Amino acid sequence: MLRYNAPIDDMMFLYEKFNKDPHHDALGYLNFYTPKYVRSLLEKSSSFASQTLLPLAPVGDEKPSYLENGEVRTPPGFKDAYNQYVKDGWTRLTCKKDHGGNAAPKTVSGFIDEIWSSSNLSFKLFSELAIGAYNCILCNATDEIKNLYLPPIAEGRWGGTMCLTEEQCGTDLALVKTLAEPNDDGSFNLTGQKIYITSGEQDITENIIHLVLARTPDAPKGTKGLSLFLVPKVLVNSDGSLGVRNKVRASHVYDKMGIKGVPTCAIEFESAKAIQIGKKFEGLKNMFVMMNLERTKVGLHGLGLSETALQNALHFAKTRKQGSGSDGKTIPIIKHADIKKQLLKMKSLVEGERALGFWLSQQTDISLDHDDNVIRKQASDFVALLTPVVKSFFTDLGMEITSDAVQIYGGRGYLKDQGIELLYRDNRITSIYEGTNAIQALDLIYRKIGTKENDIVGKFLNLINQNVRVFKNNKINEMKKQFHEYLKLMIDYTNWLRDHLSKNVNDAKSSATDYQRSLGYISIAYMWILMCEKSKTVNENFEKDKLMTAKFYFQRILPQIKLYYENALKGSSDIMEFNFSAGK
Amino acid sequence: MLRYNAPIDDMMFLYEKFNKDPHHDALGYLNFYTPKYVRSLLEKSSSFASQTLLPLAPVGDEKPSYLENGEVRTPPGFKDAYNQYVKDGWTRLTCKKDHGGNAAPKTVSGFIDEIWSSSNLSFKLFSELAIGAYNCILCNATDEIKNLYLPPIAEGRWGGTMCLTEEQCGTDLALVKTLAEPNDDGSFNLTGQKIYITSGEQDITENIIHLVLARTPDAPKGTKGLSLFLVPKVLVNSDGSLGVRNKVRASHVYDKMGIKGVPTCAIEFESAKAIQIGKKFEGLKNMFVMMNLERTKVGLHGLGLSETALQNALHFAKTRKQGSGSDGKTIPIIKHADIKKQLLKMKSLVEGERALGFWLSQQTDISLDHDDNVIRKQASDFVALLTPVVKSFFTDLGMEITSDAVQIYGGRGYLKDQGIELLYRDNRITSIYEGTNAIQALDLIYRKIGTKENDIVGKFLNLINQNVRVFKNNKINEMKKQFHEYLKLMIDYTNWLRDHLSKNVNDAKSSATDYQRSLGYISIAYMWILMCEKSKTVNENFEKDKLMTAKFYFQRILPQIKLYYENALKGSSDIMEFNFSAGK
Repeated sequence: MLRYNAPIDDMMFLYEKFNKDPHHDALGYLNFYTPKYVRSLLEKSSSFASQTLLPLAPVGDEKPSYLENGEVRTPPGFKDAYNQYVKDGWTRLTCKKDHGGNAAPKTVSGFIDEIWSSSNLSFKLFSELAIGAYNCILCNATDEIKNLYLPPIAEGRWGGTMCLTEEQCGTDLALVKTLAEPNDDGSFNLTGQKIYITSGEQDITENIIHLVLARTPDAPKGTKGLSLFLVPKVLVNSDGSLGVRNKVRASHVYDKMGIKGVPTCAIEFESAKAIQIGKKFEGLKNMFVMMNLERTKVGLHGLGLSETALQNALHFAKTRKQGSGSDGKTIPIIKHADIKKQLLKMKSLVEGERALGFWLSQQTDISLDHDDNVIRKQASDFVALLTPVVKSFFTDLGMEITSDAVQIYGGRGYLKDQGIELLYRDNRITSIYEGTNAIQALDLIYRKIGTKENDIVGKFLNLINQNVRVFKNNKINEMKKQFHEYLKLMIDYTNWLRDHLSKNVNDAKSSATDYQRSLGYISIAYMWILMCEKSKTVNENFEKDKLMTAKFYFQRILPQIKLYYENALKGSSDIMEFNFSAGK
Repeated sequence: MLRYNAPIDDMMFLYEKFNKDPHHDALGYLNFYTPKYVRSLLEKSSSFASQTLLPLAPVGDEKPSYLENGEVRTPPGFKDAYNQYVKDGWTRLTCKKDHGGNAAPKTVSGFIDEIWSSSNLSFKLFSELAIGAYNCILCNATDEIKNLYLPPIAEGRWGGTMCLTEEQCGTDLALVKTLAEPNDDGSFNLTGQKIYITSGEQDITENIIHLVLARTPDAPKGTKGLSLFLVPKVLVNSDGSLGVRNKVRASHVYDKMGIKGVPTCAIEFESAKAIQIGKKFEGLKNMFVMMNLERTKVGLHGLGLSETALQNALHFAKTRKQGSGSDGKTIPIIKHADIKKQLLKMKSLVEGERALGFWLSQQTDISLDHDDNVIRKQASDFVALLTPVVKSFFTDLGMEITSDAVQIYGGRGYLKDQGIELLYRDNRITSIYEGTNAIQALDLIYRKIGTKENDIVGKFLNLINQNVRVFKNNKINEMKKQFHEYLKLMIDYTNWLRDHLSKNVNDAKSSATDYQRSLGYISIAYMWILMCEKSKTVNENFEKDKLMTAKFYFQRILPQIKLYYENALKGSSDIMEFNFSAGK
């Protein structure tokens, strides 16, 4: 049985001391989300996570959601837990006040996202997709639609989904076939099958709002012909009451490696009543409002599962005795150099990720809410740049870290009753869903590093360069030196990449994943310098802990960038010229 | 549903052309195991693997072995398949002719081990442990015991296990508590509980021979007090017929992440009748005869699962269409640089591992069977050196390669019905069982790299250095250059490691895993040069395929050694001085 306590002190350090940003302060969130209040929220969610959600995770794994007579049944205990979750107000956390929400900034909700991910990712996904639908409607729909659909989602009474994938297309949405035929009253009849729909059907909310990418009969081919539709499971009357059941049903619940508590469904739309939201043919763009916020959250899935893996591996390593010390007495395995090294690797990554997640949350809040266009644009660029990094880097590291935890447990790690292997299985989807990590990398190099005119990555690297130069702290001098050395490499790597995007696109594409990870490594190095600099304001032990963890990160992990860059420089001819048909 | 065909051409290339070794030829195996006969064996096993074993793998996963009224039931179809396996003579393959065996060399049986691992690791383990017991008895028992116990194991009528682990000790066998009390007739009464016993109880053989590490009442503490005992599930009369049931039973079948088809049991010995084999207090040494052969086989588990992952990922990548080429038409995903790079990585590792596995098989045969002491000793040293490398490196790479395959499948990779995720779960135990990979690394640096007087690793690096220098082949000049560059690093790394084993042992221990992997990388580089050199004798396409795959390996994978070595040079003070109690 796993244990979990939210890392509240670490979170509060980030919230209070780590990176005071005047642009974020200007948003006024601190008036309501005071450190004291935020701590109380974290404590409340930590307690719900450890007492209710964590014990339900193996239940969801053992008794997965399933399809019965056309209805999807969720695992025992999930509905009760959901009701409590709703009652405690968690579904409202980030929703607008207009819809009964608590309008929490991402700097707060990001922590809560991590906590739910740490304790029970399956459970979290029900609500996460509903809030995804909320945000998508919020950004794209008319006031009339918003007023009708958003309050029940905020209240947790209605769920939501995002329906993109079809049998013939996951990554490549140009191939979407689902058809939306216009009716005289302005509504549409939507027909098609969507697959791999997380929380696509369930028995814990009274309605489900599907957001569906589909084509109208007059649509051009490709992604430019996609429009976005709102399709309720149960039709909604104009007074908000529920009407008749729409022609939407789950035809299959997939049997998966992990996250079995949440149903992943095939959904059939058979002339289902649909409402177009946003402009015609702008469906993909509109859906991506939701996708981008979702992608950051997927990064937090990886972080959350990694945190739980770390906590439990650490506890196991402190209590499990094997082998003897110099005096011949049996010692806990944490005393062995190899185990300790693994744990430090996990710790330096988990805490670094958390800081980067927080930094991205600050930028996201600024990008959404700041009054000043220019400031908003700059934050928005940074969000665009780092969203694929956080999504993919945290989930890739999640695979490593949950695997490390299994390894530290030894034979026990492979047994279901210990719970540690479940983290490994649950995490394995995170590098796939919401766009595989390879797709994130292509998104990064094609759309996010910008052009010479709008050099987003250049701005980011320049910002962190400037900020680090300012610190006059002897304790971090050595790290600063290493930081600038690897930052220089990143600038060279970026220039190489941008150059080869035009010169030899396959050189750039074959290095995209490595580049994405490198940007993750340098960003986390920056976070470690910030943490070290600010940790002295907490206390001596805290500072020492951060300094030593950071030292490990700079010595052992950051150098990976060099290998990636050198690999990139080798081009791609050896790859592209290889013919798999000839040999294997 | 997965597909699998044994890579017979690749195997036959190794068997016939790759590394003709006069010492191995001198063993005379080629008289019987002619290339033609070996090919027919591979074809026969490939066909049984793909037609019978592969379809049973998901059955074992869905309907795992379980305990019912004290008996362990194996999954549907396993017993029938086992009977066919016995009938086809596979249990006899490596057994001595004296016991009705076919006395196949490891150069042949290694391929067959890979094929079973590729198709159904759970199924393979039943027989593998029995043959492990066979070898352990063969090396340690009296002729009387051998004549009584070995023929039924060779015939497949009896199974076998190795019972080491107890609740308080997995890695650290000094803590073994199981007690063997002497009887007047020379037998013992053995009492204790052993856990995580693979195939510890089952319903497919009529008897099971347990080999158990235990302590006699007069035993000193620690591993020096361990003796080895043979404990049959059903007592055996002196004429070989079965007598009464011994006091041995399975009390638990563990629920695991993977390899669910084979039962992993807790076994209770309650004054069970036991026969001591080998000398008193030499149990650990005697058990390790079995363990070392087993460890190489575990490496082949990793290789086998990786091969299946590669075959299926390749097929998927060739048939799944997503994204478009320069002409706007949808293309198979194998055309994307990133996917192709991943597949080449998998291919270059899988084929390199297979060659290294074959090379180790040659050395193992020589170490066991050669007439000349000196030649046998040298081969034996190489086997000692490379056994932990093959065990740990192949299984670690197995995690990467099966994970890569899941990733290439995208969302489908996470679904059970595709079968690819099962490879990932099955493989996850291989880096843990038969000694975790971290323990292999400590074994390597403490016991296998030798001393300045008996410099095993030095001899190995010297051998591969000399052999590569001999080749005069323009096509591999560039690779030779890189090879010598990284070989130089390995020599430095080895000297550093040996030096620090005496100077600062934690420096060496904290780098042991990295060193082990580095030795794996350089060994596979050597294999690639051998393969390139010899592939020209096959045909032009085959040679081109090998040359290009090798080029990829040298450019993209081998350089990892440098990072490991640089990491080692940083010592371990940052690790050892870290105090996990203070912070997290």
